[in-house]
Amino acid sequence: MTQDVKINRGLKGVYFERSAVSDIDGAKGELTYRGYSIHDLATQSTFEEVCYLLIHGELPDSAQLAEFDGKLRQARHLPPAIHDIIAACKDGHPMDVLRTAVSALATMEPDSQQVGEDAFVENGTRLISQVPMIIAAHEAIRNGRTPTAPDMDLTHAANWLWMLKGEKPSDEAARLADVDFILHAEHGSNASSFAARVTIGTETNLHGAIVTALSTLAGPAHGGAAEDVMKMVHEIGKPEKAAEYVKAKRAAREAVTGFGHRVYRKEDPRARHMREGVRQLGEEMGAPEWYEILQAVVEAMKPYARHGLNVNVDFYSGVIYQLHGIPMDLYVPIFAIGRMPGWIIQCLEQQRGNILIRPLTLYNGPEPRAYVSIGDR
Amino acid sequence: MTQDVKINRGLKGVYFERSAVSDIDGAKGELTYRGYSIHDLATQSTFEEVCYLLIHGELPDSAQLAEFDGKLRQARHLPPAIHDIIAACKDGHPMDVLRTAVSALATMEPDSQQVGEDAFVENGTRLISQVPMIIAAHEAIRNGRTPTAPDMDLTHAANWLWMLKGEKPSDEAARLADVDFILHAEHGSNASSFAARVTIGTETNLHGAIVTALSTLAGPAHGGAAEDVMKMVHEIGKPEKAAEYVKAKRAAREAVTGFGHRVYRKEDPRARHMREGVRQLGEEMGAPEWYEILQAVVEAMKPYARHGLNVNVDFYSGVIYQLHGIPMDLYVPIFAIGRMPGWIIQCLEQQRGNILIRPLTLYNGPEPRAYVSIGDR
Repeated sequence: MTQDVKINRGLKGVYFERSAVSDIDGAKGELTYRGYSIHDLATQSTFEEVCYLLIHGELPDSAQLAEFDGKLRQARHLPPAIHDIIAACKDGHPMDVLRTAVSALATMEPDSQQVGEDAFVENGTRLISQVPMIIAAHEAIRNGRTPTAPDMDLTHAANWLWMLKGEKPSDEAARLADVDFILHAEHGSNASSFAARVTIGTETNLHGAIVTALSTLAGPAHGGAAEDVMKMVHEIGKPEKAAEYVKAKRAAREAVTGFGHRVYRKEDPRARHMREGVRQLGEEMGAPEWYEILQAVVEAMKPYARHGLNVNVDFYSGVIYQLHGIPMDLYVPIFAIGRMPGWIIQCLEQQRGNILIRPLTLYNGPEPRAYVSIGDR
Repeated sequence: MTQDVKINRGLKGVYFERSAVSDIDGAKGELTYRGYSIHDLATQSTFEEVCYLLIHGELPDSAQLAEFDGKLRQARHLPPAIHDIIAACKDGHPMDVLRTAVSALATMEPDSQQVGEDAFVENGTRLISQVPMIIAAHEAIRNGRTPTAPDMDLTHAANWLWMLKGEKPSDEAARLADVDFILHAEHGSNASSFAARVTIGTETNLHGAIVTALSTLAGPAHGGAAEDVMKMVHEIGKPEKAAEYVKAKRAAREAVTGFGHRVYRKEDPRARHMREGVRQLGEEMGAPEWYEILQAVVEAMKPYARHGLNVNVDFYSGVIYQLHGIPMDLYVPIFAIGRMPGWIIQCLEQQRGNILIRPLTLYNGPEPRAYVSIGDR
């Protein structure tokens, strides 16, 4: 066996498939969904519309959007046994509980075992609505409350905040949650979407692939950034301490969380929309200090940013959740709510003209050796 | 964006990592675990010993094996809430139920959230014992029976058959199950092991990665071969019909199931051990016809095998399960019992010197376009 084979660690820079869903220009700091700039979508669109765009490929007209949104609202429903399962594992991490419930849905939902295009769209549309319901139900159950029933008159984002907090959100808060979901909806072959494609490669069903995606998103190196930033903000405590914190981190050659991204070489284009949201929501809620701490960290980082400052999207999102009083262990599940349409369409793409995804490892273990029976070892 | 980038569809032939666990020589039809030939292990070792070898890197001495086996036996235990969760989703496919239960274990087991080397070995060892318990408990519960309690005096394989069937297996039947598990224990970066590594790449815990592996194994293109072969055997019905069946398949340019493998260009080296097992068990149980049908299919395939006949391991395993009266939807879960140590050690390897696994897709969607508000579409 030759040892001069090229090893592509992390598969960095390796293309494994074509995709018509999103385009990331890391060097320019640009992101488009189906050709539409993330900036236009974040300022002019809604999450429901973005779901339609991602899954069906084009922006819907009024009738198409009404039909799709109607399906999403009708799917605000969980089989009662899911509440029992959530109760049985309520003390676990919300990502583990969410994953368990989605996995269990595969045993209860009609057509969950089907693998055709229509089944994926049908099951996917239902799951977009069910995922936030599971998270909200778990949050209620672990706090000894009965889960709040969904409000069929609210948008996806507003209904999520309603089910989670049991009170109707302001229009601004609902819109900010909506934008947060839009910004997280899709992002190329990130680890969770890629893992979901590997699962689909074996010709399995959508529920199984979403379970894989949830397992993969749960890792702190993928979905954990918002939580890490919030911990940092708490550690810093007030704006005037930020410079000292950053200096100490850099002196210890440790990374300051919330900066940098595997793909972007400039500022993550999603960050600016969250930044403005944090500022506004902080003022609305009479707690501007979190925003001020974040901005002080950005200022303190400037001397170290030789190639420009590359704040990532999750630098700001944690503070938004904090302002809503959302516990830190729900930050990754909220990421999952947003990412649902991206996972679904990537699974659909993978299923068309499918191929088993099976790369190689290069063996570097012991040479062939003779078996020795246990008495002679 | 340049379009002349190389796309490695299915990541075929792409190396992403080194591994010291198993070596597959597809051209020669050879497989070793930690340098030991699969033939020696299948004829001289036990599944417990192979688990130790894979996870710890060397064959155990008597004291090491006794300690490891003791841990495996002590782990024949499920939290009571797992039985409740299995009951809540008992009508689902056994792979979905198994995945749901393993996912739920992450919310109940001590140290399930830990990611260090010791935690992986500890959690992994427990899961090796828990996975067959979950499958047997589900089989009991869906048939209205109380799950059979484990027998602490039996080996891993014998206890599995005991819990599944509620009767002590013959030594030959237990040994054949043992060999089946040995043969399925590890097989390089197959899709499920690779997907588990992608999940670990985000620094998540072992339970999450095993859930990913289960989702991925569930696909018919990965774990479904034994079931497909059994369906074929039933369709053929008797040995003298095999030639006609094969001829019709080939005329229709359809694949005959149980032949060929993404990696092997010769006969899968694991196949011969199952072949002899099928023959013997069939005779022991007074049902030699299944073996005869399989051999008739092999004979009928010979004229089409230009490069030698490449029967794969799952060509024979389905018939063994059939002889035990095991329902077809448990064939993939049985594969999972065997593959547990392989998944665990690959997750451990990935965790050492970890890196985020994030390849790329090449965008081939719409060019940048201007957002049009919904009234103007």
